[in-house]
Amino acid sequence: MSTITAFRTHDVRFPTSTLLDGSDAMNPDPDYSAAYLRIVTDDDGPDGHGFVFTIGRGNDVQVAAVRLLEGMLVGREVESVLGDLGETWRRLVHDSQLRWLGPEKGVMHMAIGAVVTALWDLRAKRAGLPLWLLLSSLSPEELVDLVDFRYLTDALTPQDALDILRTALPGREERTATLLREGYPAYTTTPGWLGYDDAKLERLAAEAAAEGFRQIKLKVGSDLADDRRRLAIARRAVGDGVAIAVDANQRWGVDEAVEWVRALEDPTLAWVEEPTSPDDVLGHARIAREVAPIPVASGEHMGGRVMAKQFLQADAVQVLQIDATRVAGVNENIAMLLLAARFGVRVCPHAGGVGLCEAVQHLSMFDVVAVSGTLEGRMIEYVDHLHEHFAEPVVVRGGRYLAPSGPGAGTEMLAPSIAAYEVGTPR
Amino acid sequence: MSTITAFRTHDVRFPTSTLLDGSDAMNPDPDYSAAYLRIVTDDDGPDGHGFVFTIGRGNDVQVAAVRLLEGMLVGREVESVLGDLGETWRRLVHDSQLRWLGPEKGVMHMAIGAVVTALWDLRAKRAGLPLWLLLSSLSPEELVDLVDFRYLTDALTPQDALDILRTALPGREERTATLLREGYPAYTTTPGWLGYDDAKLERLAAEAAAEGFRQIKLKVGSDLADDRRRLAIARRAVGDGVAIAVDANQRWGVDEAVEWVRALEDPTLAWVEEPTSPDDVLGHARIAREVAPIPVASGEHMGGRVMAKQFLQADAVQVLQIDATRVAGVNENIAMLLLAARFGVRVCPHAGGVGLCEAVQHLSMFDVVAVSGTLEGRMIEYVDHLHEHFAEPVVVRGGRYLAPSGPGAGTEMLAPSIAAYEVGTPR
Repeated sequence: MSTITAFRTHDVRFPTSTLLDGSDAMNPDPDYSAAYLRIVTDDDGPDGHGFVFTIGRGNDVQVAAVRLLEGMLVGREVESVLGDLGETWRRLVHDSQLRWLGPEKGVMHMAIGAVVTALWDLRAKRAGLPLWLLLSSLSPEELVDLVDFRYLTDALTPQDALDILRTALPGREERTATLLREGYPAYTTTPGWLGYDDAKLERLAAEAAAEGFRQIKLKVGSDLADDRRRLAIARRAVGDGVAIAVDANQRWGVDEAVEWVRALEDPTLAWVEEPTSPDDVLGHARIAREVAPIPVASGEHMGGRVMAKQFLQADAVQVLQIDATRVAGVNENIAMLLLAARFGVRVCPHAGGVGLCEAVQHLSMFDVVAVSGTLEGRMIEYVDHLHEHFAEPVVVRGGRYLAPSGPGAGTEMLAPSIAAYEVGTPR
Repeated sequence: MSTITAFRTHDVRFPTSTLLDGSDAMNPDPDYSAAYLRIVTDDDGPDGHGFVFTIGRGNDVQVAAVRLLEGMLVGREVESVLGDLGETWRRLVHDSQLRWLGPEKGVMHMAIGAVVTALWDLRAKRAGLPLWLLLSSLSPEELVDLVDFRYLTDALTPQDALDILRTALPGREERTATLLREGYPAYTTTPGWLGYDDAKLERLAAEAAAEGFRQIKLKVGSDLADDRRRLAIARRAVGDGVAIAVDANQRWGVDEAVEWVRALEDPTLAWVEEPTSPDDVLGHARIAREVAPIPVASGEHMGGRVMAKQFLQADAVQVLQIDATRVAGVNENIAMLLLAARFGVRVCPHAGGVGLCEAVQHLSMFDVVAVSGTLEGRMIEYVDHLHEHFAEPVVVRGGRYLAPSGPGAGTEMLAPSIAAYEVGTPR
């Protein structure tokens, strides 16, 4: 019998702003960072690793929020915590005092996400499985127990969830084999950062197409003429066989979004992403109606399952972009996958940043095996940097994520990388 | 010419959980707390005081988030900051790295609120005016400049706001005089905490009616039979001339809320407050339709102006309960007052806690003078405790808040109180 003994935390920041990687209309100078957590036990087994992705300033506060949860887990028996991660999630999220700081959104909620993901990493490593295979091995009943249905039942009941999961039971093995053999489609944002000049955009777009990506994404929203020119350059570079999505990163008001997208005059756009405030369900719904048939995508700043529920109820997004560290971890993302399946909406995760690709691929692969049961229209964002800092870096070949095989949730950063990029004092 | 020299912060916690004051269906044991900020300048004038109200755990993280903003103001000229608080608000809220932590919600957003309010406190004190009179002295153009219309213009344009404010220009002086003479209506939650037994409920309800309150509020949502019994007790105690509202503090799912409110079998309820997740616009809209004519109220956990916009667009609340420290301070609450006026919805602020009554009364009094121009159906929540810790404690007589006359935003806590209830090390 082993117990959880400590949280080790690190404020890790990569100076990405110096290269304009990750620059968009709202985030001109991100320093990709991780509020990093390692959950330590008193046995000789593995630790559990998790993190919140941030873009620099405030990463220390995010770390402090993670630390706040240490007292709720230290001293508890590992097996009992890991054996009921549904109950653990509820205890963390519904702490009566901490929930005041959200509730269920922002710094405190993301901190819970790091803890929950670290616990899943620990559980997967103890099981010797990559997270996606561990999740895919759970029964529909076990999966339903992981989800908190509070506030969801007007859209998704436990019975609805069971029905979805049972429907996907046949074929789990076959789809697992397909993923192991063929991987999962990726699209790339590498060419499209706003800070890149036209020549770099053209070169990277052509490279992406040559590498086998079937979709790329461009950042838009700063200047309409620039956007039109850059779209034309990208289209020329990739040819007609590759889709192009655009991402405004919340730059516009509702009316402005509709006007801008129409002014791009490209009905073939794969989607328009984050056209306005990520909290604006009704605004997205109106934009979606008015720019149809271009789909609207959002999710990387979607506070949690209650917002996801509404975006789906209102047909405000046609593409749900879950994020591995925006919400309260694996459990809440399972809820969001179930909601998406219930509404028949495809999930194309947000990734990039640091560690987001490594983490979120497990959720998408689990989704295709055990939830939605399909790859139709689905792909995971990919950006080609900072992977070398992880113990299990993603491998993307021919425009597809190869299925990860190492044990864990993909969230373990290499110790030398932590040491090299840590700011302040480790605890 | 003076400059801002430092943030002084304090983690202040009152052990209210020991008395079950403030207990409700979701918050059984709050310790009313303040993440407290004093903005210091290099002149001999007053400091600016602000805070975020929390209910205990996490108050230290909230303080850390406030501290994060120090660098954006220290060294800046006081007059230029205070002279353009609209621009200051936008700089704080749209910081490209910090906004990742919300955006515009949760710990980081509330931290900005404390800073913005402290700046308003400083400005009001330098002007020798209570905040409500300072705000009421600004022109419609000056007020519009304080508001960030990003994400709002599909519901409220700057021109709409100007029209509202100009319509309220005639009568400003008369309404100011009325407030100074008669005060502003209050309702009280003092009798209705879930932790109080029936005898205490009955006694306090009768006292509230005798003191002149025209409305009381009961916490509900833990047990239907208890709720029905307590409602009957309260009704008997206060008589027919006093309204009774109920507050579920987010306890229910959407369907459950409808069923529970119907099962209370009291169509005279003044409102049902926070029936479900505070993020659930569509859920509230459905509840409101199904429990009509009982109004639905929410706001104390409403993340900000984008959520307020949607709650109003969807007719999801008939009573908007702004909160002095949930959003990014005075400016954002002005935006929410304007939105409410635009949709013809009354504002009845959330208060209680510690310092919330002192702070929010300024916003309501400003609203009646310069925005909505009316007291119709409006009242401010009142709970009778912890006022003695403030430099300008609220005075409620005959069920009405007397208009505050001391300079400032009401947010200054007494130094001995801070010292007595501070946790950790002051900075």
